[in-house]
Amino acid sequence: MIIVFKPNASEAQMEQVHDYLSAHGFEIHPSRGKEYTLYGVIGNTQKLSPEYFKGFDGVSDAFRVVESYKRCSRSFHPGNTKVKIGDVTVGGREIVVIAGPCSVENKNMIKKISLDVVPHGANMIRGGAFKPRSSPYSFQGLGKKGLEYLREAGDRTGAPVVSEIMAIQDIPLFEKYVDVIQIGARNMQNFALLKELANITKPLLLKRGISATVEEWLNSAEYLASKGNQKIILCERGIRSFERSTRFTLDLSSVPVIKKKSHLPVIVDPSHAMGQSEYVIPMARAAIAAGADGIMVEVHHDPRNALSDGPQSLSVEAFRALTHEIEMISEALGRKFVRANT
Amino acid sequence: MIIVFKPNASEAQMEQVHDYLSAHGFEIHPSRGKEYTLYGVIGNTQKLSPEYFKGFDGVSDAFRVVESYKRCSRSFHPGNTKVKIGDVTVGGREIVVIAGPCSVENKNMIKKISLDVVPHGANMIRGGAFKPRSSPYSFQGLGKKGLEYLREAGDRTGAPVVSEIMAIQDIPLFEKYVDVIQIGARNMQNFALLKELANITKPLLLKRGISATVEEWLNSAEYLASKGNQKIILCERGIRSFERSTRFTLDLSSVPVIKKKSHLPVIVDPSHAMGQSEYVIPMARAAIAAGADGIMVEVHHDPRNALSDGPQSLSVEAFRALTHEIEMISEALGRKFVRANT
Amino acid sequence: MIIVFKPNASEAQMEQVHDYLSAHGFEIHPSRGKEYTLYGVIGNTQKLSPEYFKGFDGVSDAFRVVESYKRCSRSFHPGNTKVKIGDVTVGGREIVVIAGPCSVENKNMIKKISLDVVPHGANMIRGGAFKPRSSPYSFQGLGKKGLEYLREAGDRTGAPVVSEIMAIQDIPLFEKYVDVIQIGARNMQNFALLKELANITKPLLLKRGISATVEEWLNSAEYLASKGNQKIILCERGIRSFERSTRFTLDLSSVPVIKKKSHLPVIVDPSHAMGQSEYVIPMARAAIAAGADGIMVEVHHDPRNALSDGPQSLSVEAFRALTHEIEMISEALGRKFVRANT
Amino acid sequence: MIIVFKPNASEAQMEQVHDYLSAHGFEIHPSRGKEYTLYGVIGNTQKLSPEYFKGFDGVSDAFRVVESYKRCSRSFHPGNTKVKIGDVTVGGREIVVIAGPCSVENKNMIKKISLDVVPHGANMIRGGAFKPRSSPYSFQGLGKKGLEYLREAGDRTGAPVVSEIMAIQDIPLFEKYVDVIQIGARNMQNFALLKELANITKPLLLKRGISATVEEWLNSAEYLASKGNQKIILCERGIRSFERSTRFTLDLSSVPVIKKKSHLPVIVDPSHAMGQSEYVIPMARAAIAAGADGIMVEVHHDPRNALSDGPQSLSVEAFRALTHEIEMISEALGRKFVRANT
Repeated sequence: MIIVFKPNASEAQMEQVHDYLSAHGFEIHPSRGKEYTLYGVIGNTQKLSPEYFKGFDGVSDAFRVVESYKRCSRSFHPGNTKVKIGDVTVGGREIVVIAGPCSVENKNMIKKISLDVVPHGANMIRGGAFKPRSSPYSFQGLGKKGLEYLREAGDRTGAPVVSEIMAIQDIPLFEKYVDVIQIGARNMQNFALLKELANITKPLLLKRGISATVEEWLNSAEYLASKGNQKIILCERGIRSFERSTRFTLDLSSVPVIKKKSHLPVIVDPSHAMGQSEYVIPMARAAIAAGADGIMVEVHHDPRNALSDGPQSLSVEAFRALTHEIEMISEALGRKFVRANT
Repeated sequence: MIIVFKPNASEAQMEQVHDYLSAHGFEIHPSRGKEYTLYGVIGNTQKLSPEYFKGFDGVSDAFRVVESYKRCSRSFHPGNTKVKIGDVTVGGREIVVIAGPCSVENKNMIKKISLDVVPHGANMIRGGAFKPRSSPYSFQGLGKKGLEYLREAGDRTGAPVVSEIMAIQDIPLFEKYVDVIQIGARNMQNFALLKELANITKPLLLKRGISATVEEWLNSAEYLASKGNQKIILCERGIRSFERSTRFTLDLSSVPVIKKKSHLPVIVDPSHAMGQSEYVIPMARAAIAAGADGIMVEVHHDPRNALSDGPQSLSVEAFRALTHEIEMISEALGRKFVRANT
Repeated sequence: MIIVFKPNASEAQMEQVHDYLSAHGFEIHPSRGKEYTLYGVIGNTQKLSPEYFKGFDGVSDAFRVVESYKRCSRSFHPGNTKVKIGDVTVGGREIVVIAGPCSVENKNMIKKISLDVVPHGANMIRGGAFKPRSSPYSFQGLGKKGLEYLREAGDRTGAPVVSEIMAIQDIPLFEKYVDVIQIGARNMQNFALLKELANITKPLLLKRGISATVEEWLNSAEYLASKGNQKIILCERGIRSFERSTRFTLDLSSVPVIKKKSHLPVIVDPSHAMGQSEYVIPMARAAIAAGADGIMVEVHHDPRNALSDGPQSLSVEAFRALTHEIEMISEALGRKFVRANT
Repeated sequence: MIIVFKPNASEAQMEQVHDYLSAHGFEIHPSRGKEYTLYGVIGNTQKLSPEYFKGFDGVSDAFRVVESYKRCSRSFHPGNTKVKIGDVTVGGREIVVIAGPCSVENKNMIKKISLDVVPHGANMIRGGAFKPRSSPYSFQGLGKKGLEYLREAGDRTGAPVVSEIMAIQDIPLFEKYVDVIQIGARNMQNFALLKELANITKPLLLKRGISATVEEWLNSAEYLASKGNQKIILCERGIRSFERSTRFTLDLSSVPVIKKKSHLPVIVDPSHAMGQSEYVIPMARAAIAAGADGIMVEVHHDPRNALSDGPQSLSVEAFRALTHEIEMISEALGRKFVRANT
């Protein structure tokens, strides 16, 4: 960390900072210029907050030099992390496609959609059983039954399944039924949940919060990784901006930024951000072109009668067309798109 | 809800929407103009999502006319809700001041600060025991011990106490130790937690999420109120914008907006938004002038050595000066600032 | 426009709105439901502002049904507009690449860079002569001399040239020297400038303002088109959000949104949004995959010694690699990437 | 400026930065720690951009230590600047109230409103003659005639007048007719206009751009001050965020931030940000409580029939009530509210 003093900071003010740092075991490298004095601080500075020091009298500014996350940073682990889920690898040369309905509505629909999407290129199946809904009056998901139906659909097609967890008490249920546990955008900073999930060994899919910086996102991943589980897949799903022609602003630039700062794989969910299916396809293509390791899209056999998020769901035909485009872009970029053996 | 069709929508397309609505028990009032046709939808439209209908072929737009929240809306309950906590009333003529440290660091400090702030106008004491921290390497709070110390400080001074809950399993602990349970900004859409808190009778303080619209905030309050608990205090604490000279952008305009749309009391926490204590005082004054029912501020007897958020904490002297200004502005607006009897 | 009255609106309040609309020549289609009454307003509603009506007593809400822009909307002109500049067509099957330095620094550098980029796929050359700089102490561009040098570089290579205008009095200069006049993000709502540019016949390139909605952007294009000039190219260049790992947030979803709402071509400038050259390449690829008609990128023969925006400039080698990727993605999408004959 | 090198930066990479800085006349103070090396750069660093250096190989980060603006900074001019316009002083103990219609609609209305507001506490009159409108189809203002009518209203009441300029060619007109020339939010970075306005001696009122940081705002003020004119009044008018219950998010925290960083007076315009008159009054009160030197509000004798921005205009009665509240808050804060002698 670097602490910059104001031009008129007194010796006593600088000493106060010096004493605090020494008392906490940090080494200090002062540098005195004509216009300002600064301290370079050496040690385990991940525990320190730059903002904390801005509050000391005489301090003009304080900056972090080393990232606050460690296990998730590329400097800690230079090679790409590959997360394996059954036969599927996320983070390697392969482009991964996760598809399925927003919510598991009943046993037949998730089976039907799975049988429709897997042969056309879905490597994993998604389906919500516990739904985070802004209004208490909206459909809240089938709960445990939903997970069971999803599991059956996965077993029937051979594709691993992903679903979103909302509460700590449901962890055993998710460990039993799903292959990848998703942490939704609204829970990205539900630290109580993150701490519990750090104890398990299942792969985790961490969505970016709608107003989380990339740094905060990686810090949340650091919670998950803090006990050694590196099977973390990041998922960009749109941030909130002033623009309203789409539901959220899909921040595809987070893909190359994550690739630079972290070794973790990153995929993109264009369905939630766009809100309208006609915009999902171009943005899914763009995600792959930006360097994402895969996409997650909502597909419904009958979007008009979906119980949630119908308008942003692709029809099976649209999904099929999308996978052809993804395949061609993957090849143009030297990556591999794998269809299930059927 | 109003559904607007495209100028070239076919009869078949409109029928599809008509059938869906009829099948779900809604009444439809069509209106055909030269340029477009629209449906007025009557019934329990809180269950419907406008976005859902935008996905139907032929539909141009869909708008909600009645708010999605009900129990928290002013049309449901025209008078102001007053939340009573011991001798303190939030939402009446009185201006309420909640003060205390960011974190309870040990037994003595919370006692000392409480004895300092209560005689100078703090009506309630705040203090964090379970801390939501972006980084897993930051101080995470004293947990249960913190709540015990806070309770003792409250009992010693006679002031009710407030602390933030982070996990469902801690609810019994909070019911035992605190007078008001705070739901932090990061958990405003932790729906699993909200649903559990709806079952208790303690007063709840619901902070606005950093990227939550006022409507989403009121929808989260609706989760809390859905089983009948109306003892809800809203708290504006800053939203995320592009500006970086302050940590967050304190959206004081949410105060008059809440006052118009809801009957619930609303207070303002300027400490977290500003990040620097020198900006806290003017914004606390402004909050009261904007019509807030109170403020929540961080005070520390030794901000330089606080374990968290020192820079934004007021010293005891600064707090005292602030209460004098708050008192004068309260009087200018015909409201009442009450100091504890000491 | 649709005007929705409050459930308790009085007849007198509704009459006031009715009278206003009648007096201004609009036709009114009232629709009375159990819960609310609404007026459908027919006529030249582009002149009306929904916000205006929200201010009438008894009015609950007001919505626009027909877009506020007309000449730039796809409903006015269903086919794609193709803008021809010499041999180059923007908005057809061809993918257009505009490249060049941020600023024209001297005669030789713009000539050298142009000779470097044109044979490798730059269809047009960009170069700033009048520079909008946040600080008055930054390099402000060569002015008229810069335009002359740019013109010479265009003539030497046969590629059309683009440069940004900042003031009305410079219009004759730009008409003389450049092939496409660029209106920068900061001037997107400089209406005095837009009104003057509406009078000329040169192609215009309109960048999106950093906090402009797509609707405002199209309204600014409408100013340009209002006297008949349809030779308008839109350019997404990033919007401002809370994220700081990139300079701006490149909103690629604006590309499919524009394609749906307007017939005008849209290109993307990833250089200004990203701020770092290593992020420019993936985002340029993503722009094409999202459906953009082209890209505009900054290239410098010696980024380390550029007088402005060096860090975001591609080296000539990086540009060459980029064009190969653009070419492959263009083909994957059935579009055409044209290299100059050399 | 401070330049931080990556832990693995080579000597050659550091030399490259060193050479660049030396060649441009800067002094370098290197500081080598265990984890990183950094350069403190001394000299006229306002010309340098931190982003520029981030592009050099081996550089990890670069930070500005001294502000990029100088004449407008409080360190350059520690005391408060007071701008005198006739009998009115902005930036002293007095609270200044600027009131009037959004647009000058005709001779009588501006006269009538002026006669209404001045006796009740308006110290200056505002009125738009050249209107920046998003749509080319909206009312664009009366132009020169509007300025004449405004001047007459000012002369009749003795109050100075303010109006917004949109184009360089209108400067002589504004110099003749108005007492304070307003630069609107959309032109805050119209640098061509700012450069011309730097040459005149009239007081200038600079609104903050809707997505401008405080730093950019002060940099724009620096353009105005660069030739010596210090008669600059800053005006906060709301920024763009995701929230839509108000038109813009009024960022009142910019008031104490400006007061800390600059010596220039700052006022607040709550009318444009709020969009609805009922929210204007609480936010005007809050602005004064936050430390603003005054407010600018829209008042109309007949808001229902205003040609622009009716819904956000206060009626004359509401304005009168507001001034009483402003007066009481001003007194509570030890400031002075002056009513015209009538």
